[in-house]
Amino acid sequence: MRIADIARGDTPAELVIKNARIANIFTNEYELSDVAVYSGKIAGIGKYDGDVVYDAEGRVLIPGMIDGHVHIEDTMMTPGAFAEIAALHGTSAVMADPHEISNALGMSGLQYMFRASQDLPVDVFYGAPSCVPASDYESAYEELDMTAIHSMFMKEYTWHLAEMMNYPAVINGDASVWGKILAAGDVPLTGHAPNVTGYALNAYLSAGISSDHECNELDEAREKLKRGMWIMIREGASFPNLRTLLPLIRENVLNASRCMIVSDDITARYLLEQGHMDVKMRIMLEEGINPFVALRMVTLSPAEYFRLSDRGIIAPSKLADFAILDSDVIDEKFTVNDVFKNGRQIVRDKEVFSPYEQEHIAPAIKTRITKIPSVEDIRVKAEGKIINAIGVTKGTVLTKTLELEAKIENGYAVSDSEHNIAKIVVLERHRNTGRFAVGFVHGLGIHSGAVGSSVAHDAHNFVVAGYDDESIITALHELADMGGGLVVSNGKNVTEKFALPIGGLMSYLKPEEVSRELTIMEDAAVRTGILIPHPFMVLSFLCLSVIPELRITDKGYIDIMKGGIQKVFVR
Amino acid sequence: MRIADIARGDTPAELVIKNARIANIFTNEYELSDVAVYSGKIAGIGKYDGDVVYDAEGRVLIPGMIDGHVHIEDTMMTPGAFAEIAALHGTSAVMADPHEISNALGMSGLQYMFRASQDLPVDVFYGAPSCVPASDYESAYEELDMTAIHSMFMKEYTWHLAEMMNYPAVINGDASVWGKILAAGDVPLTGHAPNVTGYALNAYLSAGISSDHECNELDEAREKLKRGMWIMIREGASFPNLRTLLPLIRENVLNASRCMIVSDDITARYLLEQGHMDVKMRIMLEEGINPFVALRMVTLSPAEYFRLSDRGIIAPSKLADFAILDSDVIDEKFTVNDVFKNGRQIVRDKEVFSPYEQEHIAPAIKTRITKIPSVEDIRVKAEGKIINAIGVTKGTVLTKTLELEAKIENGYAVSDSEHNIAKIVVLERHRNTGRFAVGFVHGLGIHSGAVGSSVAHDAHNFVVAGYDDESIITALHELADMGGGLVVSNGKNVTEKFALPIGGLMSYLKPEEVSRELTIMEDAAVRTGILIPHPFMVLSFLCLSVIPELRITDKGYIDIMKGGIQKVFVR
Repeated sequence: MRIADIARGDTPAELVIKNARIANIFTNEYELSDVAVYSGKIAGIGKYDGDVVYDAEGRVLIPGMIDGHVHIEDTMMTPGAFAEIAALHGTSAVMADPHEISNALGMSGLQYMFRASQDLPVDVFYGAPSCVPASDYESAYEELDMTAIHSMFMKEYTWHLAEMMNYPAVINGDASVWGKILAAGDVPLTGHAPNVTGYALNAYLSAGISSDHECNELDEAREKLKRGMWIMIREGASFPNLRTLLPLIRENVLNASRCMIVSDDITARYLLEQGHMDVKMRIMLEEGINPFVALRMVTLSPAEYFRLSDRGIIAPSKLADFAILDSDVIDEKFTVNDVFKNGRQIVRDKEVFSPYEQEHIAPAIKTRITKIPSVEDIRVKAEGKIINAIGVTKGTVLTKTLELEAKIENGYAVSDSEHNIAKIVVLERHRNTGRFAVGFVHGLGIHSGAVGSSVAHDAHNFVVAGYDDESIITALHELADMGGGLVVSNGKNVTEKFALPIGGLMSYLKPEEVSRELTIMEDAAVRTGILIPHPFMVLSFLCLSVIPELRITDKGYIDIMKGGIQKVFVR
Repeated sequence: MRIADIARGDTPAELVIKNARIANIFTNEYELSDVAVYSGKIAGIGKYDGDVVYDAEGRVLIPGMIDGHVHIEDTMMTPGAFAEIAALHGTSAVMADPHEISNALGMSGLQYMFRASQDLPVDVFYGAPSCVPASDYESAYEELDMTAIHSMFMKEYTWHLAEMMNYPAVINGDASVWGKILAAGDVPLTGHAPNVTGYALNAYLSAGISSDHECNELDEAREKLKRGMWIMIREGASFPNLRTLLPLIRENVLNASRCMIVSDDITARYLLEQGHMDVKMRIMLEEGINPFVALRMVTLSPAEYFRLSDRGIIAPSKLADFAILDSDVIDEKFTVNDVFKNGRQIVRDKEVFSPYEQEHIAPAIKTRITKIPSVEDIRVKAEGKIINAIGVTKGTVLTKTLELEAKIENGYAVSDSEHNIAKIVVLERHRNTGRFAVGFVHGLGIHSGAVGSSVAHDAHNFVVAGYDDESIITALHELADMGGGLVVSNGKNVTEKFALPIGGLMSYLKPEEVSRELTIMEDAAVRTGILIPHPFMVLSFLCLSVIPELRITDKGYIDIMKGGIQKVFVR
């Protein structure tokens, strides 16, 4: 066995990393040593000769980092473009939930993602999207039921069940949802259970779900940890929970073996400007977490939870996936300089060797949307004085159900810039049913025009929030014309637009172009008065029926805690 | 789903444990609560009603304990008898390596163990015995090669590879041994690599082996942990490493997530008089280890290493395997009072409800041994003045190669009680080849008579250590007549004997009877002058060719470090 010959030092390695300061999470020490590589794996650690030598010059070497939960679609980039940026920041593997594309394009969307994720600089492991649609209150392209889940495992597209978001159905023992969980078998069954505690949590866990990434508060995370769940501490672009949840580790460092840091939702701009798992490391280091403990939560802990026995540490037989920092200790700068994947250098001096070239084409969107409501259709007749409104708060994916006084004009409830209330419309777009719903949202800051998107979790119908009805209708028409994308409108004019041809979710553009387009769109959105960061991401989550409290889909207002469709007027 | 109905509190549970102080390893706290049970699983933790109520009266409830490595055969009890005693002490699962019976009876022995381990009060998970025989220097009943290993996995007898003891072959890249490892696939590949460090350890690990239970010294354990191995800290009947290795945990408590405590070899008497995993807990508590950290290493850590996602903690969906202590805190007494397995009470007030009844019969030993050497045959002609002798040290399975001055009488080297040297003979017993080897052993204390056994790791041929040749030959004849067992002889007389009809390794007797018989045998052994505790266990390990330094098999002296057969006379 050649790898054993190399490990013993009797045969030169294919590649030797010389003079690396290997960060060892078991000893909490750096080990100045060489790493011998053969056939994409680590053969040994010690003093070695090799056919190719890379001199680390005493800089820190860490295992390739692992993101335990991310939705690639939400970066609006293809898997290849995403992987290029993620690799640049030292990521070697991600556990991706493809439920966005699965909502938009069904099983064919999942298959596209799988195809487009082969041979990338980051290993992309897909979970079986467990909730397509997320609930009965959402209208997806097609339902992926327990037989669909079963076939994903049989075809080996997946080795874990992606976030089981329909927690009310799990808690209530709904057979169609339990069947999905059991169809997955003895694999990591990942969860999504915001605010679920006490007896409801017991019921949720009784199905075997073993992790959660929706803890916004420390006490919630403490309870879930206590009940045996692995905690995925989310640090996304717009929902940063890391600083809030770090006391879990400070209270008991052993909890680092049951916690990992995940992204969930990040944008192209976030990736380009801030980074990926390195961002999480920097935050933990700023917060004074022991560097080796922090490192464990982005390397070994996710590898262990997902049973990836071939990675997560620097040791013989493990994949030669590692990153070299530009410093000789792990400190708050935490800058990845060079990256190796499967024993090949793919990043040098913060630049990728071979930028990703698009090879795979997604299935086309087959439905053209022609049934678009008119200005008259989306008027809200004043049936009372107090309306329900979706309450948006910066920095959390949770919303509130607010009861607010309606602004009434000519017998219709309308937007109210003085009280930060805008109108919001969702239009079904997968079957051209023409079904739509109208509601109100508080806290976005819109005082003129409208912002619209075909990225609207999770069913990804068209969502438009706007001040006046004309701007809203203009945006809906533009979304239909583009076949999906982002739009900002003002009256009859389209201010800016960005087409997303892959299921109305993603672009074929390169990362910098995606980021630039999104920046243009966000700047245009600011001109409507929106003040909240990542306005399109925030907008997109207002449709996600499985997160408390009030949401809106094409079927109307939804409050998952109250368990059904809610009226616009309270009284 | 009924379990969800129960978890929510909407339906009474089948069983409720009331007022338990649940030891929670994530919070390091006791939680005074009820545990609801349905269909052998935990449904919820909180306040519950149930059809059957057990009042824990505020006593501590812990998860059923897990032994990560044990050889059941070495207790000389059947799996059923072993499980009865282990359950009494709070054990719910063991990872058993059936390599003793596999050496003695081949694949049919393994199948017997598997058959005899169904529906026991302890779940017995067998590993695929990776080294039958342990090395080319041992003569087993049959060789279990890579195709045999492959079929064990295909037939689902096993989910992990049992200790890969042939570390020289792994390190040297021997294809027949690497093939066994690869045939196992992506399962926990458990190791056995005493004194293997540095480049040799790299080579051993390059095959993917991920744990070790042979660390006798702290530095060795530190290096293996650093290289990514899970450390099985052994606390067996005669090889206690726990106190030595506990600094691993004191240095970095996070290491508790990579360490577990295991038995390896224990006797019936040890089980009856001292206990099983509870012994390990008591030692850790005496040593001042945090009780919750200690508990983790006998519950969650082995469950995680062996990917038993259904156990190891008290949480919804996990097996209702737990033990109730007789105290309201985990303290140094650590006494298990009541035990539940799959939600059924099997131990009450330290007594098992239904003692185990033997149901399964092992395959008969098919070879009758008739070729037995004579007194003349085992004389050692004096070919020099200095002999190699096996150096035995109390408390370690390791031996030394000692070069000692021979006592010469009438031209033959003989035993020398003044210098604590006895003669040792091994006779092949699986094929009646008549092959035998003679050597010397230092440190047993024998000054008259002989002790013999068919338990002689790992090939389990007949081994006899004795002072005079006549006693040795008497013992060999008795072993042949019994078809295997233990014997103490003096001259022409058999002092005591204990037949082991199951492969020459185990008895069908009940635990107390096995223990009594063994005690009689050990007392008889003391009358030969043996001073070392567990004399038959120590004797049995003198044949194990894969542990340094000097050993003896039917093929002669073996020193695995020197890599071959050694001569009796040095010069």
